[in-house]
Amino acid sequence: MTDQSPKPGHRIALDCMGGDLGPSEAVAGAALAIKEGSIGPADTIVLVGHEDNLRLLAQEHRALRGPRVAFRHAPGIVSPDDAPMTVLKSKRDSSMVIALEMLKEGEVDAVVSTGNTKALVAAGTIKVRPMEGAERPALAAIMPRREGHFIMLDVGANPEATPEHLVHNAVLGTIYAQSSLGIARPRVGLLTVGTEEGKGGPRINRAHALLKAMGDRINYVGPVEGFDVFGDACDVVVTDGFTGNVILKTIEGLVYMLRDLVGSKVKSNPVYLAGGVAMFPLLRELKGKLKPERYGGAPLLGLNGLVMKAHGSSNRQGIASAIRLGSEALGHGAGRRMRAALSDANAVISSTPAEG
Amino acid sequence: MTDQSPKPGHRIALDCMGGDLGPSEAVAGAALAIKEGSIGPADTIVLVGHEDNLRLLAQEHRALRGPRVAFRHAPGIVSPDDAPMTVLKSKRDSSMVIALEMLKEGEVDAVVSTGNTKALVAAGTIKVRPMEGAERPALAAIMPRREGHFIMLDVGANPEATPEHLVHNAVLGTIYAQSSLGIARPRVGLLTVGTEEGKGGPRINRAHALLKAMGDRINYVGPVEGFDVFGDACDVVVTDGFTGNVILKTIEGLVYMLRDLVGSKVKSNPVYLAGGVAMFPLLRELKGKLKPERYGGAPLLGLNGLVMKAHGSSNRQGIASAIRLGSEALGHGAGRRMRAALSDANAVISSTPAEG
Repeated sequence: MTDQSPKPGHRIALDCMGGDLGPSEAVAGAALAIKEGSIGPADTIVLVGHEDNLRLLAQEHRALRGPRVAFRHAPGIVSPDDAPMTVLKSKRDSSMVIALEMLKEGEVDAVVSTGNTKALVAAGTIKVRPMEGAERPALAAIMPRREGHFIMLDVGANPEATPEHLVHNAVLGTIYAQSSLGIARPRVGLLTVGTEEGKGGPRINRAHALLKAMGDRINYVGPVEGFDVFGDACDVVVTDGFTGNVILKTIEGLVYMLRDLVGSKVKSNPVYLAGGVAMFPLLRELKGKLKPERYGGAPLLGLNGLVMKAHGSSNRQGIASAIRLGSEALGHGAGRRMRAALSDANAVISSTPAEG
Repeated sequence: MTDQSPKPGHRIALDCMGGDLGPSEAVAGAALAIKEGSIGPADTIVLVGHEDNLRLLAQEHRALRGPRVAFRHAPGIVSPDDAPMTVLKSKRDSSMVIALEMLKEGEVDAVVSTGNTKALVAAGTIKVRPMEGAERPALAAIMPRREGHFIMLDVGANPEATPEHLVHNAVLGTIYAQSSLGIARPRVGLLTVGTEEGKGGPRINRAHALLKAMGDRINYVGPVEGFDVFGDACDVVVTDGFTGNVILKTIEGLVYMLRDLVGSKVKSNPVYLAGGVAMFPLLRELKGKLKPERYGGAPLLGLNGLVMKAHGSSNRQGIASAIRLGSEALGHGAGRRMRAALSDANAVISSTPAEG
C-alpha cells in the first residue's frame, strides 16, 4: 500500500512557543526526534518562534547543528487562554499562526504544535482549509485499551457533526489507524447508546446507514457502546466532537480522582499502605496513557496539510513522539489517500437515499 | 420546604421478575427495605410478578408477614434483550408493564424495577406519560466524586434533547438533588466542551442562555467540562441522554479495564503483588460506586409518577436502596414541586428570545 520509492524529505514546522514547558523543551524535543530517528533521514524540522532565542537554545544540542534544522522568526505567542478569534485577529505574528501559514504556502508539509487546542483547530481550519470532500477537520486521539490502542475521533474539533461528517471521520480514522497503529484493515465502530438499530436518534441512524452503504471501502463493524471502547470491539471509534471531547475529559477527571482516592486510602488505612505505594507507578503510567496527546500527538485530520496537536504539557519525549507520528503519517502518503477516500465516500453518500 | 404534616403511607410497586438474580433476590430486597426502615412506617410494598412464586418466597422473610406487603400477579417476564416495542406490544402481562399500569391508575405511587432500561424508559413514558410541562423523561444517575456524590442527567432516556429539555433536566435534577443528596440549593452545571460562551454549538448556547434567564429559580453555575464533574464544580450535571449514556458506559468500561490491568500487573511483576492484592478491595469498591444505579436507583424524572430503575444485577441491598431512594423522593413531595418548577421554567423559556 505504501509508496516504496525514495522520496525527498518532508519538512515539519515545530511551533516552539505554545507549550507549558516553554521553547527550551520544544527545542530539546526536536533534537530528540532527530537523534532517535523519529523522522526520516531526509526530513527537516523548522523551529518556529523567537529566532534569536531558538538559535541560542539549539546550540545546546548537537543533533540540531546541521542542515536538518531551519528557523523561522515569529515574535508573538498564543497563550493557553487566548480565544480562537483573538488569535486569528490579533496574533498573526504568533508562532502558531506563522507555522500554519507556512503549511498553507507549501513551505512545510506538517505543523506540530503544543499550543491551545481551540485556537489551533480554528486557525488550522481557516488557514490550511479542509481537504476537498471534507467540510470540517476532526481531532483524532490514540487511546489505550486492554491490548494496544484504539483511535477515537472526533475528540473536539467539530461538536456539531452531521451524519456525513461522521462518515468522513470513519474514512479519515481508518487511514490514520493504518499509518499510526499499523493495522491493515482497521475495524470501525459508530459510538452510540444502544447497539440495536434505531437507537441513538436520526443522526446516528443515518450515519449507520451510510457506513453500511460504504461496503468494502471501510471495515465497519456497526454501532458500539461506551463500555466496548476499551475492549476489542473495534480499532476506530467514530463520534462527534462534542461527545468525544466530553468523554476524553471525563476520563481524565476520573483518572485524577482515582489517583487522589488511592492517595487518601493509603493515608487512612494502613492495610492499603504497601499496596498504595506499589500501585502509584501503575496509576501514574495510566494517567499518562490516558492523556491522549501524550501518546504523541492528536492530528487534525481532513485539512490540506498535516496539523498535529501535542499536549500543552508535553515534555521533550512527547514532542519528539508527536513529530514521529506526523512523519509516519506523511510517509504513508496519508493526505493523498484521504482525499481519494473522501471523494469515494461522498459518492456513496450522495447515492444513498435518506430512507437508509 | 418539606411537608412536615403526617401523611398516609405511600405504595411502592416492586417489579420482581426483571433482575439478573431473579425474584428471590427481589423479595429479599423488599424484606430488607422494611426491616431496615428504608421506607416510612406507613408505606407498603406491592410485589409484582408470578404471585404463587412470590408468596412462597415471601414466607422466608419475617418482615414480609404483615399488612405492609401486597401481591399482584403478572405472569410475563421482560428479558434483558427484549426490544422496547416487543415489550409494549406483546408483553402486556409482564411484571414491568403491569407495575407501570398500576402507577398509571394511581394504585401505587412509585415503581421500582431491575428490568431492561430501554424497555422501562419506553413503557414508562407511554404508560405513565410525561408530567404537564415536560415532553420527555430524564434518567438521573447518582455518581461518586472526590467528596460525596453528584447527579448527572440525562443518562439515557432522551438522546436528542433540545435546549428546552436541557432546562427541564436542570429543574428536575435540582429537586432530585434536594431529596436524594440533601443539598438545599444544588449547583447546576451544563456539560459542554469549553467554558467560554459560544463553545458547544447553537443547542448548548441556547440552553446556556435559558439557564441564565432562570435567575434565582435554579442555582446555575455555568458551563462545565468533563474533567470538572468529579471535582466540586457543581452538584447537578445537565446533559443530553446520548452524551450522558456514553459517558456512563465509558466510565464503566474504563473501571473494568483498570481492574484487569491491575490484575495483569500483579501477575507480571512481583513488585505489584502485595500492592495489587491490597488494592483489590478499593477497585472493587470503586467499580461498585461507579455503577450509578448501584447507589440505589436511577429515577426516570418528569413522568406522572415515580419510576425508579435499579441495576439489573442489583442484589437485595441494591434493591432495598432503590426502594429507599424512591420513598425519600415521594416523602419530599418531589412530584408536586417538579410540576410547579417546570411550569415556571416554561414561562421563562417562552419569554426568552432566541437571540439569548
